[in-house]
Amino acid sequence: MKLAVISRHGNVGLAAIDADGNARALFEGDAGYCGDVDEIIARGASAVEAAKSALVDAPLVPSGDFTYLPVVQNPGKIICVGLNYSDHAAEGGMEVPEFPTIFARFASGLVGHGADLLIPPESDKFDYEGELAVVIGTGGRRISKERALDHVAGYSIFNDASVRDFQLRTPQWTLGKNFDHTGAFGPCLVTPDDLPAGATGLKIETRLNGEVVQSSNTGKLIFDVATLIHDLSIAMTLSAGDVIITGTPAGVGAVRTPPLWMKPGDLCEVEIEGLGVLANPVRAE
Amino acid sequence: MKLAVISRHGNVGLAAIDADGNARALFEGDAGYCGDVDEIIARGASAVEAAKSALVDAPLVPSGDFTYLPVVQNPGKIICVGLNYSDHAAEGGMEVPEFPTIFARFASGLVGHGADLLIPPESDKFDYEGELAVVIGTGGRRISKERALDHVAGYSIFNDASVRDFQLRTPQWTLGKNFDHTGAFGPCLVTPDDLPAGATGLKIETRLNGEVVQSSNTGKLIFDVATLIHDLSIAMTLSAGDVIITGTPAGVGAVRTPPLWMKPGDLCEVEIEGLGVLANPVRAE
Repeated sequence: MKLAVISRHGNVGLAAIDADGNARALFEGDAGYCGDVDEIIARGASAVEAAKSALVDAPLVPSGDFTYLPVVQNPGKIICVGLNYSDHAAEGGMEVPEFPTIFARFASGLVGHGADLLIPPESDKFDYEGELAVVIGTGGRRISKERALDHVAGYSIFNDASVRDFQLRTPQWTLGKNFDHTGAFGPCLVTPDDLPAGATGLKIETRLNGEVVQSSNTGKLIFDVATLIHDLSIAMTLSAGDVIITGTPAGVGAVRTPPLWMKPGDLCEVEIEGLGVLANPVRAE
Repeated sequence: MKLAVISRHGNVGLAAIDADGNARALFEGDAGYCGDVDEIIARGASAVEAAKSALVDAPLVPSGDFTYLPVVQNPGKIICVGLNYSDHAAEGGMEVPEFPTIFARFASGLVGHGADLLIPPESDKFDYEGELAVVIGTGGRRISKERALDHVAGYSIFNDASVRDFQLRTPQWTLGKNFDHTGAFGPCLVTPDDLPAGATGLKIETRLNGEVVQSSNTGKLIFDVATLIHDLSIAMTLSAGDVIITGTPAGVGAVRTPPLWMKPGDLCEVEIEGLGVLANPVRAE
């Protein structure tokens, strides 16, 4: 099932999205409302199943009558992986790391599917990065690779839009990765039962104004989902609602000749097989 | 006033700490309890003032009868600044950056004053970093330097204990900065009225088992508090409860010959003039 957190007339709701983009949704205040994705994940796998059941017969909301919010509203951690496709490491002149290269995003930069990605007035070097996102369900520390996928609540899509000059003007990338309205996350959380184990083998494609600019497959991740969960949990306890953004493949705009920057009026789409399309217009702030 | 978040018999309380280390405290469930630091800051400056007033005549809790929790329990952002004292940049072979070098910590790694800093079994390269912490009160974006200090709720001390081999094995430092039980934060939040503007000109000293290992002054910050708030808020909206960890001076253990790593049984103390002493035993996990 494709779960989404949506808004209608300012009310937050939890929805199941069908193949036509229509929702079966329950909103805050409705009888039987189970909470948003943050809340149902925090209550555990049985609460997620109960929510899915409750949505099957929930009222229909046509696709034009709601907007999408970020799949997880307030993750405790947004852990981003750099250089996790070898072709992307090579295009940036970086070595393939021996261990996952980690930076962080803050929730303040998140937007949902359909919301504007904003180019700040301080930069015109605004780049796309299509990525597979993993949402943790069951927390843990020092999780074995063998059990790692049991800790996944679901998968989604992330566009890690990056302000490249701010990202690269110091040794750490964090500032250029955390501008407001630059982290698109959605549209849906797809539960693991609908996907191959570890969401591997899925075509991933980024399109800018319909032109394919990144095209790869999640099977090419250097550190796959199970390995990331294992490696990250060596350091830190992973908790329900934490998000791992697994890295982007080759084709980013910064390394092209000439560079390809996103401009006001563009439409950036990231599609991952089985997860849908995350589409966001680009605007000047 | 020195505000602290404390625990007694598992109850969380808000306290004013006196010069002898005793608390005037109100606990969850007490009449007049105002919430923890996260909550009073989120409600604004008048709520902080009301809480301070409520604590003046609150019941006395002797220093041995409570433990300290992190000053802010669940910051929306913990923004860490690297290379912000020129002597520390030099000792690590790093250039002084033209702009603040930012990485992030997650709340999952925080501990309070007096709690153990834990050396993970995966590494013996566990290093101290004494730092001035800034807690944001009033949020904002693109905050001018001139108004920046109006956005500060208070100051505290941070020991950004670092697992150096994990920090330096990839181009980004984040993983080695986010082990559980490595970010000591406290003991108190000191409100700006008790300190020089921007908490500048304060002696900062780190001691390991009583030996001074770092000694500097917050007046030597390359990017001072007002500049950091300005520069960071170019990218992102700062919100109440966000924490900025301003960077560490020279003297870290990693660059000594031989290196000086923290070991089980050590006591690490960070003292900042006017802010108190943040003391944490070091244990093997």
